[in-house]
Amino acid sequence: MHVSEIDTPALVVDLDILERNLARVAGYAREHGLRLRPHTKTHKSVRLARRQIAMGAVGLTVAKVSEAEVMLAAEPDDLLVAYPIVGHTKLLRLTQVARQTRVTVALDSTCAARQLSDAARVAQVEIGVLAEVDVGLGRVGVSAGEPLLALARAIQKLPHLRFAGIAFYPGHIKTLDESGRRALAQVSDLVRGILGDFLATGIEIGIVSGGSTPTLFHSHEIHGLTEIRPGTYVFNDLNTMRSGACALEDCAATVLATVVSTARPGQMIIDGGSKTFSSDRLANSSEVTFGHLVEAPGARFHKMNEEHGFIDLADAEAAFGVGDRVRVIPNHICVAVNLHEKVYGVRGETVEEVWPVDARGKLQ
Amino acid sequence: MHVSEIDTPALVVDLDILERNLARVAGYAREHGLRLRPHTKTHKSVRLARRQIAMGAVGLTVAKVSEAEVMLAAEPDDLLVAYPIVGHTKLLRLTQVARQTRVTVALDSTCAARQLSDAARVAQVEIGVLAEVDVGLGRVGVSAGEPLLALARAIQKLPHLRFAGIAFYPGHIKTLDESGRRALAQVSDLVRGILGDFLATGIEIGIVSGGSTPTLFHSHEIHGLTEIRPGTYVFNDLNTMRSGACALEDCAATVLATVVSTARPGQMIIDGGSKTFSSDRLANSSEVTFGHLVEAPGARFHKMNEEHGFIDLADAEAAFGVGDRVRVIPNHICVAVNLHEKVYGVRGETVEEVWPVDARGKLQ
Repeated sequence: MHVSEIDTPALVVDLDILERNLARVAGYAREHGLRLRPHTKTHKSVRLARRQIAMGAVGLTVAKVSEAEVMLAAEPDDLLVAYPIVGHTKLLRLTQVARQTRVTVALDSTCAARQLSDAARVAQVEIGVLAEVDVGLGRVGVSAGEPLLALARAIQKLPHLRFAGIAFYPGHIKTLDESGRRALAQVSDLVRGILGDFLATGIEIGIVSGGSTPTLFHSHEIHGLTEIRPGTYVFNDLNTMRSGACALEDCAATVLATVVSTARPGQMIIDGGSKTFSSDRLANSSEVTFGHLVEAPGARFHKMNEEHGFIDLADAEAAFGVGDRVRVIPNHICVAVNLHEKVYGVRGETVEEVWPVDARGKLQ
Repeated sequence: MHVSEIDTPALVVDLDILERNLARVAGYAREHGLRLRPHTKTHKSVRLARRQIAMGAVGLTVAKVSEAEVMLAAEPDDLLVAYPIVGHTKLLRLTQVARQTRVTVALDSTCAARQLSDAARVAQVEIGVLAEVDVGLGRVGVSAGEPLLALARAIQKLPHLRFAGIAFYPGHIKTLDESGRRALAQVSDLVRGILGDFLATGIEIGIVSGGSTPTLFHSHEIHGLTEIRPGTYVFNDLNTMRSGACALEDCAATVLATVVSTARPGQMIIDGGSKTFSSDRLANSSEVTFGHLVEAPGARFHKMNEEHGFIDLADAEAAFGVGDRVRVIPNHICVAVNLHEKVYGVRGETVEEVWPVDARGKLQ
């Protein structure tokens, strides 16, 4: 199949770039002795998870029990659910997953830990637990110090749980500029303090799981880190590029779109909007753009409706007519992938493979 | 099934409100002699399309050929594809749909019209065409006056096409405040002028299809309008409420979510973010909120990641713990529905029906 036969809008992945991205991060993790546990929320595809495992990933990360169920097909040695799992239905399903592979959950409350312990007891399985600590983002995670130690002790006491270590996400670091490097050093100091606390109390820590996309290639600078769980690196996107963690030529995924209207001078409308790209704005920027046009970097994708992308052509390097096709690098690839049923893997102008987004829309 | 048995996050529709919304718009259209052709992009469900037809809708509107294919199952007498359909693959599929029911396409270029004519000729079908005119939004649509007449003449000359009238979308009118009413009067004047132009040239116009959500109940004030194609009214949302076209108690759809973390004082995290609600901000407002919490209207849903909703509880009317459930009215229900596999229809605390979002993610 030739690229020109793909109907639009469609998600197209350059396989050369994808493979380079996979190899780069696998190599980085190997070089620094970090265990790589990719977050599958980006690609949501069993096929890519298998590739990550084949290239040395020690396991997979998911955000949802339903994603864990899907990812069992990639036969991971273990699965980290990096999300507090709450509620009877989910816990029941989680214990069923735990019958098939080793499962670890990151959580931040004794309430969630107790529910998990109860479910594991009923199902007669053991589940690993990471205590989630907040290192500055202010999302999930208890504070370092006594709250974290108290959570760890509570987990240790609960039957059928195995306290495995700590997890954190320094998502407050948006770029590795001077202030970002300072923030990373602070995270490292905080983790050093935490490990000291645990050592003093005699609680053993196996896993220190952390890192974020902007800090990805500086993860080894975080004291005591044993494991990273990057997701976006497989495809990269405009946010990753702007954060400094990749170059534009490392962006493997584009949305292929067709020009459907040029009725208004200086503007064109493409056949994708918020239901194709998501309406995620650029992270950490007041600039309003919804993607980068490969064929005309000066064109401004400044507005969208559900199925319409508005492209301002005032500074565009090329002219376009109805029926022309353009490729757009999205702001945030993880939410864009979730809107597509399948992905076209291309090499040059040839579609080599088409894979399903297996865990697309798995919300529970 | 009881509401408490629904796993979260989930899209829940109050059937009493849904039925009231369906009846209100059907009644409005009947009262004013307007043909109602609901846009199915909001619910994407065959079941709801059938209900709309049963309540008097003359046909259905879709934005994509793939949506048209899905909606054939609702057995509409005719289908309007309110989107310029461009490219061989889509046109071939469209002509197959046209073998099964009457199809009309709204388009704004002779290029698109010519492609459509060619495809219809090959398939030996006749396809209706509405000439899309821009009445102020600056999205698709040619200008009124000579460009519109030229497009209409081109369509009339093309074989296998039936020039059926005009379509427009006054999406630039955000609320019906004084300036909105003025803008609506301008649209009406513009349409009056267009109809005069056509009369003068002897080109017959059957369909004048227009209207938008904020102007929905004022559609009869647009001169010569024959047909409305509202979508959002079945569920309504925060945007509709803010535009003045519905009250909060007319919002039928909420996302049911669970509190998964309260680790940070004054904040809670719910188990839905941009992959559950979409990242659509409020239309026409600088206020940053991603939804209205039914249980605590003062709570501020001010930030989201993919699977995390950040709720600021500083002004909340209630306290919440891990495991509590809340209902959230989304900003924009059309993009939220597209992220869900199914919808729970509830009456009181009972789940009466569960329906699939049949055309979810149909992008091509």
